[in-house]
Amino acid sequence: MKPASKKSWILKQRPASVPNRDDVDIVEVDIPETLEGQVLIETTYFSLDPAIRGWMSDTPSYLPPIGLGDPIRASVTGVVVESKSPNLSVGDRVYGTGGWETFCTGPAEYFSKIPDDVPFPDHYYLNIFGAVGLTPYFGLLSCGDIQPGQTLLMSAAAGAVGSIGGQIAKIKGLRVVGLAGSEDKCNWVTDELGFDACINYKTCGDLETAIRSACPEGVDVFFDNVGGETLDAALLNLNKDATVVFCGSISTYNSSEPVPGPYNWWQVLARSVTVKGYLISDYVPRFGEGQAQLAEWVQAGQIQFKEHIVDGFDNCLDAYNLLFEGKNTGKLMVKV
Amino acid sequence: MKPASKKSWILKQRPASVPNRDDVDIVEVDIPETLEGQVLIETTYFSLDPAIRGWMSDTPSYLPPIGLGDPIRASVTGVVVESKSPNLSVGDRVYGTGGWETFCTGPAEYFSKIPDDVPFPDHYYLNIFGAVGLTPYFGLLSCGDIQPGQTLLMSAAAGAVGSIGGQIAKIKGLRVVGLAGSEDKCNWVTDELGFDACINYKTCGDLETAIRSACPEGVDVFFDNVGGETLDAALLNLNKDATVVFCGSISTYNSSEPVPGPYNWWQVLARSVTVKGYLISDYVPRFGEGQAQLAEWVQAGQIQFKEHIVDGFDNCLDAYNLLFEGKNTGKLMVKV
Repeated sequence: MKPASKKSWILKQRPASVPNRDDVDIVEVDIPETLEGQVLIETTYFSLDPAIRGWMSDTPSYLPPIGLGDPIRASVTGVVVESKSPNLSVGDRVYGTGGWETFCTGPAEYFSKIPDDVPFPDHYYLNIFGAVGLTPYFGLLSCGDIQPGQTLLMSAAAGAVGSIGGQIAKIKGLRVVGLAGSEDKCNWVTDELGFDACINYKTCGDLETAIRSACPEGVDVFFDNVGGETLDAALLNLNKDATVVFCGSISTYNSSEPVPGPYNWWQVLARSVTVKGYLISDYVPRFGEGQAQLAEWVQAGQIQFKEHIVDGFDNCLDAYNLLFEGKNTGKLMVKV
Repeated sequence: MKPASKKSWILKQRPASVPNRDDVDIVEVDIPETLEGQVLIETTYFSLDPAIRGWMSDTPSYLPPIGLGDPIRASVTGVVVESKSPNLSVGDRVYGTGGWETFCTGPAEYFSKIPDDVPFPDHYYLNIFGAVGLTPYFGLLSCGDIQPGQTLLMSAAAGAVGSIGGQIAKIKGLRVVGLAGSEDKCNWVTDELGFDACINYKTCGDLETAIRSACPEGVDVFFDNVGGETLDAALLNLNKDATVVFCGSISTYNSSEPVPGPYNWWQVLARSVTVKGYLISDYVPRFGEGQAQLAEWVQAGQIQFKEHIVDGFDNCLDAYNLLFEGKNTGKLMVKV
């Protein structure tokens, strides 16, 4: 069951822009001994998330940068093949923080057991029941404190987080306006997911004006996954006492130069806005509560989501860059 | 008692940088009829505040820009010389929102009566009992929700707002570190006002490092009056879940180009920071409570403050620009 070696995608150098094969590469290495408290996981799926790009840089952040020569950190699913922990047993199906590797060794507490009786495939735990679903769940309900009747503006609305977030806000009785980069994406979130409107930011002309038209009563909560010009246009449409949930900033991740904050920063003061830096990791103790509610909505057909699963360990890098081209058609994962 | 004309400082054109005599000028105009609900005030003191510079621009903000040809909006004290309101009587001493004018006409609700029995001079109502004292009072105690044992970093620490704010935080049991632009200012806030430390940002070298040395346990609350590079250096020293009270941004007010937000914007997410845009006008219903507490502290000698009173209506502009040169030695006012 435990082979001698594994394949790993490692970080060779810090990318200057979109990561390429000079930055990350596949190596074959020995599988280390599993120490007390650790488990060895044979991976089944990798999650490909924008946040990984941040960890490739050495900017100070909420997690240390990926070390040069270290595996690319990622959420994964897998099966326990060796356990030196009382909390996980060989054969357990798990999800947690590992890397783009065929086998991962790590502390048992990095992984959670997938219950045996759930009617969902394992990779849902990298998606709706993982950070993808839990991020908008706590980001809107706790951090953003959304209320019925408010207007929510959701950036990256057709993305994994945004599309689920918009549906949660609709369930909670908000007017939901999305931002997305193609007609197909806009049509999907309005026609299939029930968003009230969606702006194609590539064709709408002046974005500030387009948001104003779509949000005639202003924006009460802006859920920001994108940063940059999108954030600037949103700031000029916020209502007094609005909230910005600062969840990500994908527009800036591939820049090698220092990136300025929003030019309309002053509007935060002028409109008494609260900007909340939001990390899903702060809500780990409440994940069970979020997963239970999301499972109920999924089973009731109230939340839809798309998956974009690329087959093959070797295809991780090409698959990853679909994110930055906006070409993935759902939550991006690799089947090992 | 009511003359035919008044002198007014008016806005002739929007300043490109520090306002000069081509931007604002003195005119002599007829005093308009006092209409129902209005009062006519003979002014005694003008307040010279950084916020006025913002109102001279036509950037969207929390108050409309000063119209071209209109008097420079400011807090003033004065005496009622004509009243068409049941709420104020001729002879009442008042403070409120008027302009840099020898006489101001306005709605009675723009002005509050100074109680007859207070042991303080009128101009204290442009200072410790006006926005200058109330801004740090509510900014720290309500908006910033400061707690004993926390570390507060106060920008413009020797300024009118910053110096009072630091003393309030000391009364409340915080460690208080200031930022100021001269040795004299630093010595004043540490030796006279009881700040724990003060960094001279002009001589300290790398500001991020200097803040780190002065705040070895990190910064829990940053009270930002300055923006720009100061904010950027502060962001790199914030603790997880820290709060930024965004009260002003004087470093950017005289720019005619769009000013970028903080380059370290990402740290807001990475440290789960809450940034709160803060407007003292949101606390008007609680001004009485704040004034009562501040009066108690002033009478007990627990809060000191400096005044820099320039004599003469005609000197408003020259006096105003002391603010941007950092040359005022206390809360800046003009005695009409």
